[in-house]
Amino acid sequence: MKLVIGNKNYSSWSLRPWLLMQHAGIAFEEIKVRLFTAGFDEAIARYSPAGKVPVLVDGDVTVWDTLSIAEYLAERFPEKQLWPADRAERALARSICAEMHAGFGNLRSQLPMNVTAVLPGRGWNVAVQRDVDRIAAIWSGLRARHAGAGPFLFGAFTIADAYFAPVVSRFATYGIHLPEAAKRYADFILALPAMQAWIADAREERDFLASDEPYRLAPDRADAIVIHH
Amino acid sequence: MKLVIGNKNYSSWSLRPWLLMQHAGIAFEEIKVRLFTAGFDEAIARYSPAGKVPVLVDGDVTVWDTLSIAEYLAERFPEKQLWPADRAERALARSICAEMHAGFGNLRSQLPMNVTAVLPGRGWNVAVQRDVDRIAAIWSGLRARHAGAGPFLFGAFTIADAYFAPVVSRFATYGIHLPEAAKRYADFILALPAMQAWIADAREERDFLASDEPYRLAPDRADAIVIHH
Ligand SMILES: N[C@@H](CCC(=O)N[C@@H](CS)C(=O)NCC(=O)O)C(=O)O
Ligand SMILES: N[C@@H](CCC(=O)N[C@@H](CS)C(=O)NCC(=O)O)C(=O)O
Repeated sequence: MKLVIGNKNYSSWSLRPWLLMQHAGIAFEEIKVRLFTAGFDEAIARYSPAGKVPVLVDGDVTVWDTLSIAEYLAERFPEKQLWPADRAERALARSICAEMHAGFGNLRSQLPMNVTAVLPGRGWNVAVQRDVDRIAAIWSGLRARHAGAGPFLFGAFTIADAYFAPVVSRFATYGIHLPEAAKRYADFILALPAMQAWIADAREERDFLASDEPYRLAPDRADAIVIHH
Repeated sequence: MKLVIGNKNYSSWSLRPWLLMQHAGIAFEEIKVRLFTAGFDEAIARYSPAGKVPVLVDGDVTVWDTLSIAEYLAERFPEKQLWPADRAERALARSICAEMHAGFGNLRSQLPMNVTAVLPGRGWNVAVQRDVDRIAAIWSGLRARHAGAGPFLFGAFTIADAYFAPVVSRFATYGIHLPEAAKRYADFILALPAMQAWIADAREERDFLASDEPYRLAPDRADAIVIHH
């Protein structure tokens, strides 16, 4: 299986299936396409008609979009229990993932994922805070309910944890204040080996995507490659 | 089962599960909440913590967001075959639904669903046309492949048809020109009894949602109720 992803520093959508497979122990080959570079459109067109990362290629099956990839993996590896086993819990897990997939527009536009940056206080406004409050409520509610069953949202690791991982990264980058239970969950996710591996890889990247950097005029590192889009 | 929906004239997301259940013959009680009226936030909060329509209530299980509702129904009524039976086809169906769920932003913002309005030429621009082209390519490609198996995208009716139904309505409202095969599919969907029933109900509605009417300063009908948001 091949997973086509974008820059680890910036591509929040790529992080989701990557972390899912990595943490669940599903073997895959990673193919990285550098976002918004001259060859990007052509490179991604080889894999997906939708022109976006991530894309999963499994033999002659091509799957694009994180949610579709997640469903495909859940069906393909039933023994990994990527969704909660209980029907009502599974419906809830899917509902919050779908909510993330199409929603939280303020958070997503104001606090773009930027794994290695340190930008406390930037981007915050009351509309962002409404998104933060809703996410914190989701996390706290689930953690309270499943505290006895394990440290993830539904006790054991599921797609929902992978789905919220980029948000955990954003909260760290922008220094978002969280209520206690949500903070504990965020810290736990950030410390996962798979998450730490992604962050380490992001540190190796030199691309500075100007369109994803509303709060920095220029890169911090001297060897950066500035990409305008 | 209860399906909570918004105004039939405007709520594109509500149309998806409504058409899915109606056409597939899944019985449900419809609960309509008038979008952006004084009581909306309070009414929807009774059903869903995400504050949006549609919401499916099945006994003590609450499912929100169209994609999550679709997956729930597919699991709950396996005999209806709401997804294609073949694994690769199912992955494709999910990919295009997910693409619709989070994408086609130009189309969605410029051509808001407005079932009963007649606004040919309004909203069109080249960015919209790129979305139209992609959608027409999806429809034409699938229709060519499944022509022998039935008139829907994957031959038989699936979630994918319900997912694109609001787009069919938009293309009609805004007089979007389509290539032959895509036009035939759009006309076929528009003529479905379930779709015609939705349209007839939309005609009974009096709400004029100013925020969803970028191309009309005032309603056409004298008994309209203008709602500002
Ligand atoms: N809804 C998609 C979103 C994918 C997406 O927006 N990917 C971005 C990078 S994070 C991308 O490929 N952008 C390139 C482009 O739009 O040209 C998913 O869930 O996979
Ligand atoms: N991603 C959601 C979108 C739902 C949505 O945006 N619904 C709109 C009406 S079509 C709504 O409830 N808006 C009310 C609000 O945002 O306050 C889904 O697929 O169900």
